[in-house]
This record gives sequence, structure tokens and C-alpha cells, in this order.
Amino acid sequence: MKSPASFIDHTLLKAEATSAQIRQLCAEAREHEFASVCVNPAFVELCASELRNSSVSVCTVVGFPLGSTTTAVKVFETRDAIALGANEIDMVVNLGMILEEKWDLLEMEISAIRQMCTQPVVLKVILETSALTTPLKKRAAEIALACGADYLKTSTGMHITGGATREDVRLLAEVALPLGKAVKASGGIRSWEDMQQYLALGATRIGTSSGCAIVESWKSSQTS
Amino acid sequence: MKSPASFIDHTLLKAEATSAQIRQLCAEAREHEFASVCVNPAFVELCASELRNSSVSVCTVVGFPLGSTTTAVKVFETRDAIALGANEIDMVVNLGMILEEKWDLLEMEISAIRQMCTQPVVLKVILETSALTTPLKKRAAEIALACGADYLKTSTGMHITGGATREDVRLLAEVALPLGKAVKASGGIRSWEDMQQYLALGATRIGTSSGCAIVESWKSSQTS
Repeated sequence: MKSPASFIDHTLLKAEATSAQIRQLCAEAREHEFASVCVNPAFVELCASELRNSSVSVCTVVGFPLGSTTTAVKVFETRDAIALGANEIDMVVNLGMILEEKWDLLEMEISAIRQMCTQPVVLKVILETSALTTPLKKRAAEIALACGADYLKTSTGMHITGGATREDVRLLAEVALPLGKAVKASGGIRSWEDMQQYLALGATRIGTSSGCAIVESWKSSQTS
Repeated sequence: MKSPASFIDHTLLKAEATSAQIRQLCAEAREHEFASVCVNPAFVELCASELRNSSVSVCTVVGFPLGSTTTAVKVFETRDAIALGANEIDMVVNLGMILEEKWDLLEMEISAIRQMCTQPVVLKVILETSALTTPLKKRAAEIALACGADYLKTSTGMHITGGATREDVRLLAEVALPLGKAVKASGGIRSWEDMQQYLALGATRIGTSSGCAIVESWKSSQTS
């Protein structure tokens, strides 16, 4: 079986990350050929430099993790990140807009960010599924795709209600896959066993800070 | 004794806050005459409208809660918030800069934001003290004050290592008060008993989502 590395966004989003840790993250990503490194905006420039001439993308987050900045700020943040070298943008939706069913505002916000993410920049929309009811998840997912999201992503990994679940990944896959779009599962995924479940449900990206351990575990499973 | 309300930033920063909850927050702030409401940037405009012709300030957060956006984004976010009606800005420092002792970058960032916060806009600098060693806290506090911060603030209230402690408030007060600057204690303060401790140590602002309960409890203590 193919290595799972190419499905992994190698992630370090904690507030106290240092340049040395980010350099190490980039070195690990080169070694294992992860899909991307996923870092906070302040480290995009460093990652773009560290990953020059590699196949690893630079992924960053916008409006992270609360999603409660203004649309104008999210748009500026997206443009700034791309100018610094990001080629994947994981934006957090405004949960208040979804809970209040202000669909027109949600649509305006995601569309404005999509407009900044010109090809080949990849846009993932983080829905924070654990904080939403099923009908709201579904509606928000449909809107995100209609606005041009490339991926629906489950979770920030920082919300009190938790990260990815099998049910949520299944639901997002049901909405996204028929339209030729993709799903990223994230939040609480720490082992190869966890990851396999989400791949089986149709996710093609996994956000995790345990990428190296997962690849090692996969290797052991291949030789045993 | 004077009501503690005038020391309280009445706070609602969770990602799933709705407009109805923010309107209620504003109504409570008017009723009790809290110092401010402290909300995410997406709600600044609503609060400015709800609190027109009141003594309650509109406080918002910048780079919240991780502090890991770029300086350019923090500056844009500050300007946007003030344009929408914020008159108090609680910015989160970049913890990586402090941990790596990149003091020049820290200074540049705080100064750039201070420049946006022209009088009478109040600037509070959140140090996330629970994530720092004592020497780093002290140095970061000194730099924040040298850059023109009006308040040193302990915590975002969202960091895994915790919120305000007596030790940290004492330390920040020792640095700030001799310079005529102030301290805001925040993170985990839920009762009048908690709050009194921090006031006694020299804090003159308290960030809490339990403002109404605290005022009720203070009232009971006055009549009993």
C-alpha cells in the first residue's frame, strides 16, 4: 500500500511554536513527503523558504481558530498569506452566521476569500462540525462548495466540543464527493488506526500533529 | 464600597456567540455600567450601535487567541476594529517572538499597533503569562509598556496552561504601576472572591464572562 504521508497536512498550530520547531516540521515534511505543513500565518514566510524546491505545500489558517474576525480581516489575512508564500488556505467560517442562518453573509465571506485564492491556491473551509447540528452542517457545507471551496474540513482541533468524528466525515463526503470536491478530517487524529477510518470514509486529507508517528506506524504494519 | 462593575470588561469571546447573546451582553453592560463589553471583531459594529449614548466602551481582541498572525494582519485588524467602533484593543503578543527573545520584532509589532490606536483608544497587551517563564514575562511586559501599552493583560482565557494567577498579576503590577500604567487580570475569574484578590494586587480591570454573577454576589455581600 502507498504511504499515507501524501494525505497528511503536517500540522503545528500551537501559540508557542518557535522557528526551530517550524524548521523541524519542514524537514520532516520533506523527508516523509507530506502533502503540506500547516502552520500559523506568522510562520508562512519561513516555511516557504524552508520548502523551496520541494513537493510540500505551505498551508496556513485564516480567522483561526474562532472564525470571529470580520470578513475584511479574513480577506486581508488571506492575501497577506498568499503573498508570503502560502498555497493552501484553511479558513474558519463564522459560526455565528451559521447558527443564526445568515446564509447570505456566509456566502459573501467565503466567496470573498475564494476570490483571493486564485488558482492554484487551494481553499479549505473549516466548518467546526462538532459545534453544529446536522442540518446546519449540511447547509454550510453546500454553501462552502457553491462558493468554490476545494475541501470541506471538519475542525480547528481547538474547539471545546471536539474534533473530527466518523459521522461528520461521512456527512461531508456525501456532500462534497459527488461534486468532485474533497474532505479534510482534522482534530484529535493521532494514530494510523484513526487515520485509516477517515480515509475509508472518503477523506483525502488528514490534519494532524502526529504525522511522523503515523507514518512510522504504517511502516511497521507493512513489514509485520 | 463602590460597585465592582466599573472594573469589569464584560466578556463573550466564544466562537459560537450569536447576535442575540451579544445584544444581551450589551444590555447587561448598560444596566450594570461595566467598563466595557469585550467581544470578537465580527461583533464590534453591533456593540457600537447597541452602546451608543452609554458610558460602556467597546473592547475587542486582535490576533486572538493565538497571537500568531502576522504583524501586517494585526495592524489591519486593529484599524478595521477602530473604524467599526472599538475604543479598546486587547492584542495578543506573538509568543514565539518572546520565547525566541526576538525583542526587536516584538517591539516593532506592538509599536505598529499602538500607532493605530490613537488617543483615546486604549491598548491592552495580552502576554499569556501562563505560557512564559518569569524573566520572559518581565521583559515582554517592559517592552509592551515602552511601546505605549496602557494595560498589561495576563491571559486570553483560552490557553491550555491557564489564566490569571496571583503571582502573575503581582509581577505585572510591579512593572506597570510605577510607570502610571495599569493591569488587567483575565482568564478563569468567576467569582467576587476571585476578583477581590486581583484588585487587591493592583489590577484595575478584570476580564470575565461572569460579570453579572459577580455584581450580584458583591451586592449580597454589602447587605449581609
